Amino acid sequence: MKIGIFQFFSKFGEKEYNLNRIENVLTHVDADLLVLPELCTTGYQFISRKEVHDLSESIPDGESTRRLMAICRRKKMHIAAGVSERNGDDCYNTSVLLGPEGYIGTYRKIHLFDEEKLWFQPGTEGFQVWDLGPAKVGMMICFDWIFPESARSLALAGADLICHPSNLVLPFCPDAMITRSVENRVFTATANRIGCEARGGKSPLNFTGLSQVTDPSGNRMIQFGSEEEGVKTVRIDVTLARNKHITSRNDLWEDRREELYQETRNKK
Amino acid sequence: MKIGIFQFFSKFGEKEYNLNRIENVLTHVDADLLVLPELCTTGYQFISRKEVHDLSESIPDGESTRRLMAICRRKKMHIAAGVSERNGDDCYNTSVLLGPEGYIGTYRKIHLFDEEKLWFQPGTEGFQVWDLGPAKVGMMICFDWIFPESARSLALAGADLICHPSNLVLPFCPDAMITRSVENRVFTATANRIGCEARGGKSPLNFTGLSQVTDPSGNRMIQFGSEEEGVKTVRIDVTLARNKHITSRNDLWEDRREELYQETRNKK
Repeated sequence: MKIGIFQFFSKFGEKEYNLNRIENVLTHVDADLLVLPELCTTGYQFISRKEVHDLSESIPDGESTRRLMAICRRKKMHIAAGVSERNGDDCYNTSVLLGPEGYIGTYRKIHLFDEEKLWFQPGTEGFQVWDLGPAKVGMMICFDWIFPESARSLALAGADLICHPSNLVLPFCPDAMITRSVENRVFTATANRIGCEARGGKSPLNFTGLSQVTDPSGNRMIQFGSEEEGVKTVRIDVTLARNKHITSRNDLWEDRREELYQETRNKK
Repeated sequence: MKIGIFQFFSKFGEKEYNLNRIENVLTHVDADLLVLPELCTTGYQFISRKEVHDLSESIPDGESTRRLMAICRRKKMHIAAGVSERNGDDCYNTSVLLGPEGYIGTYRKIHLFDEEKLWFQPGTEGFQVWDLGPAKVGMMICFDWIFPESARSLALAGADLICHPSNLVLPFCPDAMITRSVENRVFTATANRIGCEARGGKSPLNFTGLSQVTDPSGNRMIQFGSEEEGVKTVRIDVTLARNKHITSRNDLWEDRREELYQETRNKK
């Protein structure tokens, strides 16, 4: 299976420009699955709920999802991409999973970062895995990385590959995703954006690039620089993610001691 | 609070030598809490159950624990140290927590690595935290690092500082402990050993050194080289570990969505 990540600069609010850019670049890409950044058609730094509402779209019949599905159909590929979703009055920071046959599923971000809490409702459905045939795939979005339960939930649900659309501003994630790969023996594909947004007098947000794919042994298979744009692809052997052995005597799943783990905080 | 880590080469089976070494070095150390490596008085690579049985000691009345307690009393310090424990016919890969007033508690390793499964019983009591006054302290041992639930359990139980006696042979742990610090906003103190053991015709084990202390913001406060021996100390401000804010709107504990996490593997 050949997977890829697309790191680029999305212009805030210019959906038409961003979608054209995505279409033009993806026309030349050969991959089974491509991961795009979080909120990749709208940009990130909203300044009002009205703005979020106006830029968000219903899924799967909104323009962003429809145009991404058209690419999937034409290129016979899958896409995992961050899209701003509107459902009635509520908006969600969502990742869509699309394929040659159309719409497959969505994940609505459950751990919202900073001002996202002003604009979006948190997802209420947790972490799901879809069997695409060549691989079982799950999605998490950006800040979800800091909660080990996100990648763990996906891996326990059977994910071989975690698609991770991102708009990262903190520095720890690329190394932490190595840990996420090793502790779960899964592939991860983080597609981050680059560039700076500073809208309506707000503090500038510098997006950190360094998009990467990691393998179950903790290798970085590909990585972008912090200002680079483009698509990189790599072939992955998903059977590696189905072998949870660390040594001949240690299987990551068999060795878990669920009955001894504490899952809730001591409040005293 | 001043904490330290002691990285050194323990000679297999020479408890008297190793304990003298520890005593001599610690005489010159000024710290409130010192972390020593896993199985630091016996060495690591056992070749028979009889050998494990003969070298292991009861706790707290065995020689290793008694002599470490004497150091704690004399130096008015705490020690967290890996000791091979015998209890009836069963042996455990244990870490003891000792203080100026004597014995405080033990943690019996619950995730045994490779041949440890031949020699030791896994712990059955999970992860505990002790309030030492200046800090709440928990212990985990070596390979426990790969299971995110270990550090998570300790942090949810209130640990400010995770003492992590180790005999590491895999390369990922020092970076993964940065992730453990950031995802839980705790201090971690990994005391690893150095050197090589190759006993009874077995494959050599190369211990990786690189002992370190990390802070809740993911900084490496101190780190050893891979062959260096000695003690390094650092002052930590435990109040940093009690503030779980990542941004003004994100508190690591408040943001957890326990009801959405999957804790058990899909078996289909």
